[in-house]
Amino acid sequence: MESTHSSKWSFEANHPLGILRMMLRGGGQVMFQENAWTGIFFLIGIFWGAYESGTDLVAWGALVGLFTSTLTGLALRLPNDDCQRGLSGFNGILVGCAFPTFLGSTLYMWLSLILCAALTTWVRIGFNHVMKPWKVNSLTFPFVFCTWIFLLSARMLQELPIEGLSVPVLEFGNFPTLVFPIRFVDLVVIWLRSISQVFLIDSWVTGLFFLIGLLVSSRWACIWAAVGSAVALLSILLLHGSGIEVAHGLYGFSAVLTAIALGATFYKPGIYSAVWTLVGIVVTVFVQAAVNAWMLPFGLPSLTSPFCLATWLFLLPMFPLDKEEPDHSHWNKNKPHQATE
Amino acid sequence: MESTHSSKWSFEANHPLGILRMMLRGGGQVMFQENAWTGIFFLIGIFWGAYESGTDLVAWGALVGLFTSTLTGLALRLPNDDCQRGLSGFNGILVGCAFPTFLGSTLYMWLSLILCAALTTWVRIGFNHVMKPWKVNSLTFPFVFCTWIFLLSARMLQELPIEGLSVPVLEFGNFPTLVFPIRFVDLVVIWLRSISQVFLIDSWVTGLFFLIGLLVSSRWACIWAAVGSAVALLSILLLHGSGIEVAHGLYGFSAVLTAIALGATFYKPGIYSAVWTLVGIVVTVFVQAAVNAWMLPFGLPSLTSPFCLATWLFLLPMFPLDKEEPDHSHWNKNKPHQATE
Amino acid sequence: MESTHSSKWSFEANHPLGILRMMLRGGGQVMFQENAWTGIFFLIGIFWGAYESGTDLVAWGALVGLFTSTLTGLALRLPNDDCQRGLSGFNGILVGCAFPTFLGSTLYMWLSLILCAALTTWVRIGFNHVMKPWKVNSLTFPFVFCTWIFLLSARMLQELPIEGLSVPVLEFGNFPTLVFPIRFVDLVVIWLRSISQVFLIDSWVTGLFFLIGLLVSSRWACIWAAVGSAVALLSILLLHGSGIEVAHGLYGFSAVLTAIALGATFYKPGIYSAVWTLVGIVVTVFVQAAVNAWMLPFGLPSLTSPFCLATWLFLLPMFPLDKEEPDHSHWNKNKPHQATE
Repeated sequence: MESTHSSKWSFEANHPLGILRMMLRGGGQVMFQENAWTGIFFLIGIFWGAYESGTDLVAWGALVGLFTSTLTGLALRLPNDDCQRGLSGFNGILVGCAFPTFLGSTLYMWLSLILCAALTTWVRIGFNHVMKPWKVNSLTFPFVFCTWIFLLSARMLQELPIEGLSVPVLEFGNFPTLVFPIRFVDLVVIWLRSISQVFLIDSWVTGLFFLIGLLVSSRWACIWAAVGSAVALLSILLLHGSGIEVAHGLYGFSAVLTAIALGATFYKPGIYSAVWTLVGIVVTVFVQAAVNAWMLPFGLPSLTSPFCLATWLFLLPMFPLDKEEPDHSHWNKNKPHQATE
Repeated sequence: MESTHSSKWSFEANHPLGILRMMLRGGGQVMFQENAWTGIFFLIGIFWGAYESGTDLVAWGALVGLFTSTLTGLALRLPNDDCQRGLSGFNGILVGCAFPTFLGSTLYMWLSLILCAALTTWVRIGFNHVMKPWKVNSLTFPFVFCTWIFLLSARMLQELPIEGLSVPVLEFGNFPTLVFPIRFVDLVVIWLRSISQVFLIDSWVTGLFFLIGLLVSSRWACIWAAVGSAVALLSILLLHGSGIEVAHGLYGFSAVLTAIALGATFYKPGIYSAVWTLVGIVVTVFVQAAVNAWMLPFGLPSLTSPFCLATWLFLLPMFPLDKEEPDHSHWNKNKPHQATE
Repeated sequence: MESTHSSKWSFEANHPLGILRMMLRGGGQVMFQENAWTGIFFLIGIFWGAYESGTDLVAWGALVGLFTSTLTGLALRLPNDDCQRGLSGFNGILVGCAFPTFLGSTLYMWLSLILCAALTTWVRIGFNHVMKPWKVNSLTFPFVFCTWIFLLSARMLQELPIEGLSVPVLEFGNFPTLVFPIRFVDLVVIWLRSISQVFLIDSWVTGLFFLIGLLVSSRWACIWAAVGSAVALLSILLLHGSGIEVAHGLYGFSAVLTAIALGATFYKPGIYSAVWTLVGIVVTVFVQAAVNAWMLPFGLPSLTSPFCLATWLFLLPMFPLDKEEPDHSHWNKNKPHQATE
């Protein structure tokens, strides 16, 4: 078993610019890109979208979460490699986006955000440890799991005021679907919003920034993100999902992540992996609808759990689509098709 | 770790009759019987019961699901052994029974059925991979898990109309129990219905066909199915469960599967395993009631999850009831008491 | 893999006094103490608290559960070591406390209690088997899991009358918090009640007995139980949890167990493990609130699941706080700081 701790401690790790690079890579790792430039574009997109929609605190939360989780990784003396590659930070930045989206801004909300972001760093180590025998890793599930705990707890703690969470209900009730014909430009906006929703941002401009951020790191990641969003949108339109949720990209963001994971990260791009990824995208849409329904009585958001669930279903069988025995436990390891910063 | 893929490809696998036999064995494997004759009796029972109760589509769904999942196994080039023994098909046939039972017959329902049946084939490989370190296998849980996803998603997708699902509620409320004295003939009908409900069929004639199907493959499997249904019926009558559910055999089908699994499949028939199996049957009845209650707010059926859960609880401790170190990961391997076709 | 069964059978195991000692140690093991004197103090505390609050049956249930699960361990011929150290009994005693707390006293309730207590003995073996690759053990989760099954099933079985369970609801609604200033003596009472609630007892006197029971076995366990209860109380007061639940110690008992587990059992007491444990206690409070909210639609109590969940999150990363490669799978093994009886 690989050691999860290390006494090696490079100079770089404590250098302010070194930490900055770790943080930026942490942003990029949300979409599997170990690339500081990707992280910069992602952060620009987050700030643009947050300020555009008047939810400034989401962007600042992202920074706090990223900073906290990255520093926690250093403080826990995780293997240098983990820290350098931004793997401590990608769950924390998502925690930072989620808390101000769903909770009111109080002192205890921010303290909870910091505790939860730090928690994801070692929960990720723990979950990866659990999943190691199956050769998959925990993806963004540490973010999902820890955030669910804190959002649930907010229903019982008056110092964590609920602001953006749904009211718990037993049935979704009748809901309008999108009415055809839909203008092409509207479809493009939804397609881009689905990409921006990976970071809980609802802005087509942000979606563009995210695509550019992917492009500077990996052509295939950018292509699959675009394809994932488009195929998910087509699927949910055909299946007649709730129009409001579709319009805000809430049926697309998990599919975007599944597409990048299956199409451009854990399998080599190719004809077999392309078919496999397309099926994975469609299954993610069903899983998204299922988790949404499952969460109704709790009033919780699905976060990126549909992506985690669907991707595991397509990784666990360990089919060798690229002619080698697969090992899905590490991210971005020896990926020849990906630019390094 | 055993390889889950194979480049070996026998002529037989592509032969139409070979595929037919795989499908029939897939039907038999739902009750752990690698026997095409068992599959024939099961299919006759399914068609009889479906047409008798006016739900013809359940039988045709079973055929579609069985066909899809078996072919998926071939297309994914699973180990030849898996395909030959019908292990690709048994989850798919259950998916095929469940979809028309709970959803209305639309184009997208049938496309979803095909996708879900195919999905179970590789989810089974994945789940077995996960459970391999614990030396148990995933039983019918791939069917349960994938079907739950699609049934849940149907609450959010208007193209998948819900027809046979319960309305989500918080409490089951007051319910009448069966009033004593119950005529002996009624008990016999319920006893046989409990066996037919393994395939979601509500017919005592079907229950008879299923018992005959078991008998042609394994005397012990037939005996334990009969005992499982009887002991579960006695238990739920004593515990005063809901009369309607008891009358339709809904407290018995999981216990039937537990009985065959513990009494005649994973442990050698004997005095110790008989006691162990009897306790397992009673525990399955409690688990059945528990899952039913747990599913109330989601309006989901428990499917065969109580069987999976209870059987795992009795396999995981790895007690060597037959004096050998147990390995529960494979089905029907080296079972001296079971006829092969 | 270590064998989970043994043909070695010492004389002592069948000696009446030997079984008595196993049972007493089983009581102590709920708080990780392999010490018969601890068990005696715990039982005195349970009887005192149960009779004080007029719920005598809770104490007698504890005895029945402890006796049943210990004897089941002997009957299943578990490794002699497991039985001797009281590891068969600690889940059973908790089952025995829970059933009369939440269910009415009928014949079938007592039969169910016996079945459930026996079940925990082999479910513990099974769960430990599952968790072995990750080098943690199942803690009190066998009790939690089995009790949840039976309490859920009681909603569907009229012979198991529900008396102490909450009504399922979707929202907790507005609730009063404790009003400041709170008298210091009230805080002390709550602090002690939180410790007594480990065994579902609501009595400050019982809390004192439990602290004494810990002290005779391990100074550090006693200190951390006290600190855990205090820190949890402070946290939940700051976060403004429901006043009634706080007052009865329901936010403290899981934190007490987390504190003993992390501070005095699985890590060596020291400066690093102290900081780690303090964070663990605060996280347990959030997990407690989260599980309470998650259980609202089911009307189930959280039991000790928050302790299990939080402790796993702090054990699974396998950080070597005491400079050795950690292995959390065994309890109390080679603990130099703990007195043996």
